[in-house]
Amino acid sequence: MNRRVSILDTTLRDGAQMEGVSLSVVDKLRIAQRLDELGVAYIEGGWPGSNPKDADFFSRVKGLSFRHAKIAAFCSTRRAGQMAEQDPNLRAVLEAGTPVAVVVGKSSTMHVTGVLRTSLAENLRMIRDSVAYLKAAGLEVVFDAEHFFDGWKLDREYALETTRSAAEAGADCVVLCDTNGGTLPSEVSRVVAAVRRALPSVELGIHAHDDTGVAVANTLAAVEAGAAHVQGTINGYGERCGNANLCTVIPNLQLKMGYRAVAGGDLTLLTEVSRYVSEIANLRPDDHAPYVGNSAFTHKAGLHVSAMRKVANSYQHISPDQVGNRMRVLVSELSGRASIAHKLGELPLAVELSDEDMRQMIRRLKELESRGFQFEGAEGSFELLLRRARPGYEPPFEVQDFLVLVEKRSERDILSEATVKVVVDGTVMHTAAQGNGPVNALDTAMRKALLEFYPQLDKVQLTDYKVRILDEKAATAALTRVLIDASDGEHSWTTVGCSTNIIEASFQALLDSLELPLLRRASS
Amino acid sequence: MNRRVSILDTTLRDGAQMEGVSLSVVDKLRIAQRLDELGVAYIEGGWPGSNPKDADFFSRVKGLSFRHAKIAAFCSTRRAGQMAEQDPNLRAVLEAGTPVAVVVGKSSTMHVTGVLRTSLAENLRMIRDSVAYLKAAGLEVVFDAEHFFDGWKLDREYALETTRSAAEAGADCVVLCDTNGGTLPSEVSRVVAAVRRALPSVELGIHAHDDTGVAVANTLAAVEAGAAHVQGTINGYGERCGNANLCTVIPNLQLKMGYRAVAGGDLTLLTEVSRYVSEIANLRPDDHAPYVGNSAFTHKAGLHVSAMRKVANSYQHISPDQVGNRMRVLVSELSGRASIAHKLGELPLAVELSDEDMRQMIRRLKELESRGFQFEGAEGSFELLLRRARPGYEPPFEVQDFLVLVEKRSERDILSEATVKVVVDGTVMHTAAQGNGPVNALDTAMRKALLEFYPQLDKVQLTDYKVRILDEKAATAALTRVLIDASDGEHSWTTVGCSTNIIEASFQALLDSLELPLLRRASS
Repeated sequence: MNRRVSILDTTLRDGAQMEGVSLSVVDKLRIAQRLDELGVAYIEGGWPGSNPKDADFFSRVKGLSFRHAKIAAFCSTRRAGQMAEQDPNLRAVLEAGTPVAVVVGKSSTMHVTGVLRTSLAENLRMIRDSVAYLKAAGLEVVFDAEHFFDGWKLDREYALETTRSAAEAGADCVVLCDTNGGTLPSEVSRVVAAVRRALPSVELGIHAHDDTGVAVANTLAAVEAGAAHVQGTINGYGERCGNANLCTVIPNLQLKMGYRAVAGGDLTLLTEVSRYVSEIANLRPDDHAPYVGNSAFTHKAGLHVSAMRKVANSYQHISPDQVGNRMRVLVSELSGRASIAHKLGELPLAVELSDEDMRQMIRRLKELESRGFQFEGAEGSFELLLRRARPGYEPPFEVQDFLVLVEKRSERDILSEATVKVVVDGTVMHTAAQGNGPVNALDTAMRKALLEFYPQLDKVQLTDYKVRILDEKAATAALTRVLIDASDGEHSWTTVGCSTNIIEASFQALLDSLELPLLRRASS
Repeated sequence: MNRRVSILDTTLRDGAQMEGVSLSVVDKLRIAQRLDELGVAYIEGGWPGSNPKDADFFSRVKGLSFRHAKIAAFCSTRRAGQMAEQDPNLRAVLEAGTPVAVVVGKSSTMHVTGVLRTSLAENLRMIRDSVAYLKAAGLEVVFDAEHFFDGWKLDREYALETTRSAAEAGADCVVLCDTNGGTLPSEVSRVVAAVRRALPSVELGIHAHDDTGVAVANTLAAVEAGAAHVQGTINGYGERCGNANLCTVIPNLQLKMGYRAVAGGDLTLLTEVSRYVSEIANLRPDDHAPYVGNSAFTHKAGLHVSAMRKVANSYQHISPDQVGNRMRVLVSELSGRASIAHKLGELPLAVELSDEDMRQMIRRLKELESRGFQFEGAEGSFELLLRRARPGYEPPFEVQDFLVLVEKRSERDILSEATVKVVVDGTVMHTAAQGNGPVNALDTAMRKALLEFYPQLDKVQLTDYKVRILDEKAATAALTRVLIDASDGEHSWTTVGCSTNIIEASFQALLDSLELPLLRRASS
């Protein structure tokens, strides 16, 4: 592992352009710290001259210390016909006080004359002046050659000239951008190699978008052709189809191609960073993402699972712990007995079940699945199925009745109230609570009823709540599946409920989330 | 467009292995018909010898006629030490009665000796016998060389020998499978070229998985190196990280590389097929998917939008209508006035607003966004914002009170009931209804209250209902966003509601979905 590639993460700038993403300044600071722990070389924090929130980020990021990463501020070349010193967008970068500036300039004649509406010569001067201005201020300068590959197709001499102008003005790195994402790997390969020959001394970089589904491959092709700087985002976030996904690019470079891409070379934080960023960005994680997805090392078909038991990694391209992920085996109607046996084998309780208990449990499992339950992501409810099948199972509580009421009268605030009648050990607890929604009211009422008997529930917090409409076409009459994550600070578990009634589905998952820790404790 | 690539779609077989996917026989038949309309060459329907549901599919698919596609049945090579004629898995293919068989065999020495636990020589005989048996029955035979690239790394002579055995036994096509998805494009390129030289006369194919995020690129690399048969799935569905995504591969081959990949060469059905399959598979469509995603041609940043207005396609790699998709411009806090002006420009109503009305509307929009509303996917509610800002706006109805009750008593079934008090034109309608859940009860009650005044609402159906938990960490107290799709048979619209109370959020979206058609009708 001698060869190095510098990673510039632009999750906070280009990634934040993604539909549905809105990051607060605090979110950005937290993400920056995680990126530093992962060991990227550069963190592009934003565009201080275009967005006041970004300026705030740069002023606050100065108070943090980073072990590996340099913070970079983004800007465009100066405006046509003006002096660099007078350009507020360039001055904002100096005010941001970062050690690195990324300056974007146009490389395609169509964009210079058609979009920017200036002359080809003036565009070259804009690039030169802007880079020189930032270099004179002592910054490390990365030049992003926008629309480079499209520009190359239109007028390769001019495209090359823009990068030469940047290099001559002192740019430390010239990044070839496939801004519209329309270029395929073999072309990226040829073009990067040609630029490498034309500009042998400046460091080259690649910035790829995924509009043809090959952003990762384009990045690898560019590195193979001589690029040593890679731009991308965590989880591939970005406009339209996204940017090159660093969670795929980095392990490909390190584990497959022998490059060092992150400081220290340790990728075991990768899965955690991926999920952390999706959580902060409030986007559902892509379960099928390479390397870091929850399903990336998941085995379902009976065939594969029985093969895996014979030869480890026979159906895995790497060992998941190299990237901090894990192997999973699914319970599912498609899978054979091998999968279920493997799954049950993970739970020590299974050994206590007789063959007949086990058959009944599997029958119950299949019946629930046919009603829309799914235990693939709800190991807590699956464990409860097992525990309830054990001889001598005693439910720690039983809900006899419940009532939920949501009321809005004229000008008054909306009211959510729940009543529950719960039997614990022969005692009837009938109580009620309000909440900021009906499920929250039920949750609060249940805790009121149970805490007296089970003070340990005080530690149990619900940490996540997901709703999935199964047959969306049935609209408001649709079957609804609810997943609840809960934690006692030490362990966490996920439970499931399913019903056409969203309240009932939520209540089922809620009751499971409260029963499981009580049973676990009783049996330990 | 002279060169052709044959597409074998395995959505119904390999795609159905994806976590969370369960396709009924009817689902599979419907998908097969759409694939035929798209113009793929082969549709792999399943594994009749392994799955009774698949056998049912093959018996029913015979009753359908296909214009372009041949139906293929999947099987494995015969068992070790047995005769092909006695292998139930091979006989099931003949019983399936398809014109094409895909037979998978092992190409990696590790899998032969470690997983299959037979001799290398017997594995070659198994391949030869199985292919010859199916050929003798008159079938077109595709041989899938499982783990070919991994096998090549371990023992390239043996891997090659397995494909040679298949070719010599009469296989019409030999497909090199990257079963674990761990191979990168430059290696695929080298290996396919080497196999091409070693077996110059048989057709070669490629079957790629996306575990390193390069399944599409591997497919293209194989075609460039001489493969003429491509296997993949719609939307890239498949185990773990999925298979090569045909919705990306096909337009890359046709629009970028000059191959003919589907009969007729017309890709305008592509987006529709992609969304249809995700709907049938009950998976949320990937908005960011290349070519077919809802965001694939979406523009948010003010910069891009103003450039697009100057030079069409300056920020798009193709014209979206080539693949049946469309350009979208988003309303969002990140975007500048150019985006909002473009958005408003799409709605003829905007011209009726004074500058002051417009400023107020934008203020209201931003306030709602800060409360968690998002209008990016809810054009119906956005149009209502505009319509409500018009001078002389008269609400067609006003909800004064509502009450929702969900009740479960002992052994009785759960009950959901809603009451609504609605004022229409000075008349108070106070009514109630039951439903199979609380939102369905509200929907039914509202229609009871309004139908007398607005009989045209009879045609309005809710066609989709989605729930998104925004701050999932807040668990049952979380902010919830609800999207409802409605249609009157001619037009459809999407509306949004947002609240910590899921009933309130649903009710907001529901009321918008009912108000919009009334206002549209009044103004037309």
